[in-house]
Amino acid sequence: MAHINPNFNNLPQNYLFTDIARKVSQFKSKHPEINVISLGVGDVAGPLIPEVIDALKAAADDMSRTETFHGYAPESGYPFLREAIAATDYRDLDISADEIFISDGAKSDTGAIGDIFDLDNIVAVCDPVYPVYVDTNIMSGRAKNTKDFVYLPATADNSFVPELPDRPVDLIYLCFPNNPIGVGITKAQLTEWVDYANETGAVILYDAAYEAFVETPGVVHSIFEIPGARTCAIEFKSLSKTAGFTGMRCAYTVIPKDLERDGKSLNALWSRRQTTKMNGVAYPIQRAAAAVFTPEGQAGIKKQIAAYKENARTMREKLSAAGFDVFGGVDSPYIWLAVPDGDDWAFFDELLTGAGLICTPGSGFGKSGKGYVRFTVFGEFETIREAMARIAALYQNA
Amino acid sequence: MAHINPNFNNLPQNYLFTDIARKVSQFKSKHPEINVISLGVGDVAGPLIPEVIDALKAAADDMSRTETFHGYAPESGYPFLREAIAATDYRDLDISADEIFISDGAKSDTGAIGDIFDLDNIVAVCDPVYPVYVDTNIMSGRAKNTKDFVYLPATADNSFVPELPDRPVDLIYLCFPNNPIGVGITKAQLTEWVDYANETGAVILYDAAYEAFVETPGVVHSIFEIPGARTCAIEFKSLSKTAGFTGMRCAYTVIPKDLERDGKSLNALWSRRQTTKMNGVAYPIQRAAAAVFTPEGQAGIKKQIAAYKENARTMREKLSAAGFDVFGGVDSPYIWLAVPDGDDWAFFDELLTGAGLICTPGSGFGKSGKGYVRFTVFGEFETIREAMARIAALYQNA
Repeated sequence: MAHINPNFNNLPQNYLFTDIARKVSQFKSKHPEINVISLGVGDVAGPLIPEVIDALKAAADDMSRTETFHGYAPESGYPFLREAIAATDYRDLDISADEIFISDGAKSDTGAIGDIFDLDNIVAVCDPVYPVYVDTNIMSGRAKNTKDFVYLPATADNSFVPELPDRPVDLIYLCFPNNPIGVGITKAQLTEWVDYANETGAVILYDAAYEAFVETPGVVHSIFEIPGARTCAIEFKSLSKTAGFTGMRCAYTVIPKDLERDGKSLNALWSRRQTTKMNGVAYPIQRAAAAVFTPEGQAGIKKQIAAYKENARTMREKLSAAGFDVFGGVDSPYIWLAVPDGDDWAFFDELLTGAGLICTPGSGFGKSGKGYVRFTVFGEFETIREAMARIAALYQNA
Repeated sequence: MAHINPNFNNLPQNYLFTDIARKVSQFKSKHPEINVISLGVGDVAGPLIPEVIDALKAAADDMSRTETFHGYAPESGYPFLREAIAATDYRDLDISADEIFISDGAKSDTGAIGDIFDLDNIVAVCDPVYPVYVDTNIMSGRAKNTKDFVYLPATADNSFVPELPDRPVDLIYLCFPNNPIGVGITKAQLTEWVDYANETGAVILYDAAYEAFVETPGVVHSIFEIPGARTCAIEFKSLSKTAGFTGMRCAYTVIPKDLERDGKSLNALWSRRQTTKMNGVAYPIQRAAAAVFTPEGQAGIKKQIAAYKENARTMREKLSAAGFDVFGGVDSPYIWLAVPDGDDWAFFDELLTGAGLICTPGSGFGKSGKGYVRFTVFGEFETIREAMARIAALYQNA
């Protein structure tokens, strides 16, 4: 008799996005005349830049002729893409092409990275947190339930950058600029974490999905800016928010060759994991991704990100003017708003019914998220302006 | 201190394709004048059919405009693709769109399916076998080494279709038409397996990657042709060999809603696994895949497969005429040749040095593969003719 993985019974039932969808759908059916604006899920508004579209079509042409057809790709990615990333994102850092693994998403990689670590490792995560880090460790049995994690609160008291853990941990998931809060980490702050990991032998799983939005001097783009990171850190990066690739699925994970535990290279272990459990990313997608790393591609995505950052500036300004305390949104596409009376679900309801706006209640991301809501800054500028005008109208007499 | 997953130390060192690559590269550098022909790795020759290319380009256009842009896809696949597959591949079978999960490859899915099962389950695999089934179960710790598997020999004595296991097993990996042998399974034979699984509660993990090559009446395309399969089987299918998608990465896994163990729906467990650990397949790839399931697309891939099958017929005929016993190659793109003196590596060397041809030694796929080599039938017809002429010349005086 086959039995199921009993760890699935330990998964927390997270109804966050289901509950949001239900409330929105109820509201829409009651008020079909209202154009509901979503600043909830962190999806980009598109479109892709012309360089990416052209590369995708050229790759389609390659696949239409025997001489230029591409079959199985190297599991870790085509050299043309790995080298382009090394020469662009890691131009000034000590990272080489064979330390960069191409994949179909940072979600896939942050979910799968646990495969190469012992199930007895103790896991630390920030609070609030991206649920994938928690759920994948419960699925594998590394943690039996949420109590087995060492939570690192990110609160207004510590300016949303957690302190070092107060007891031993082995794997530390850090995401900066963080999701859902939208605050970056400085080199000085991240140096403390790198030093801690090197002293204790912990490994930092560093999710840098939003680094392209960093503008503040001294705020970290890559953990490999920090001396010592090559012996304690794995970095996850994605084209989803950087180049609007949420529907294209291309990301990359950096594992330095200096990173060893138990005398084994984690780069080699990940390579073994990937060659055994996947068959690389589609050739047309890798060609499209490579177009992002040309000078024209870099200029194109910078313009796109600048537009989102203009949204963010407008939102921060208007939300502040409406009397709210706002955090994030400078080095990130997320804004974290402190709900005046601390009831984030009531605030969600108020915004939906009073202004036809969707945000995400912070308590859905963890205990320390309670009392906040998250706004994403993706969308057309006119839509963002309209959303802010509705909030101003709703709270003008408050 | 972080520790690595100790199960990785238990992985068998499989040097098969590395050894082949080394021998081929040595030969080529010694004999640059010889045009080496590979009938080794099972990759398609391309190109993609025009319908797929057009759909890929149209999807690129969609991604270039805000109104038609697609961001995050549903993790289990777009309804347009799931419904097209249900209406085509499963037209005459009791399988609905919400039982079909789109993914980036059958390798990914056969590797990941273990996530939803208990680590204490006993695993049965055929011998010879696709190494992914073995390696992924060792990685997860379900098996400590190859001795923990129940091997099901597929030999000339049983016409390459294994007998039922002689002791209890929980998970049974079956691949038919099988890899590396290239032999299909009849409805009567597969019915025995389905009945066995339903009687014992085992789950059959059925890899149907090569079913598009089946032509013999009574040989199974889908395990869901067999009464009772809905309560004991998961089926993996891929566009890699069916539509030349090895470089496009699109596959699908079918989990019937009737399939339960420990009172839980495996369809729901897999959905939970997929939504947590991946973010769906790229929109342009899903659009390209959907073009395969139109009437024009189906006609196009049938023509392509017919060409490969013409290769297979020629190879079977010429290899038989050269005095060899050949199996497979009727319902499959693989031909299994019995090496006269039983030394498959010596035969590999002989073909390489004597005829500039690459095959795959069967012992690389398991104990029962010893004494055989595998040929793939992919390639241009003229190349196949040339390869067979070289073999005829090499063995004409034998």
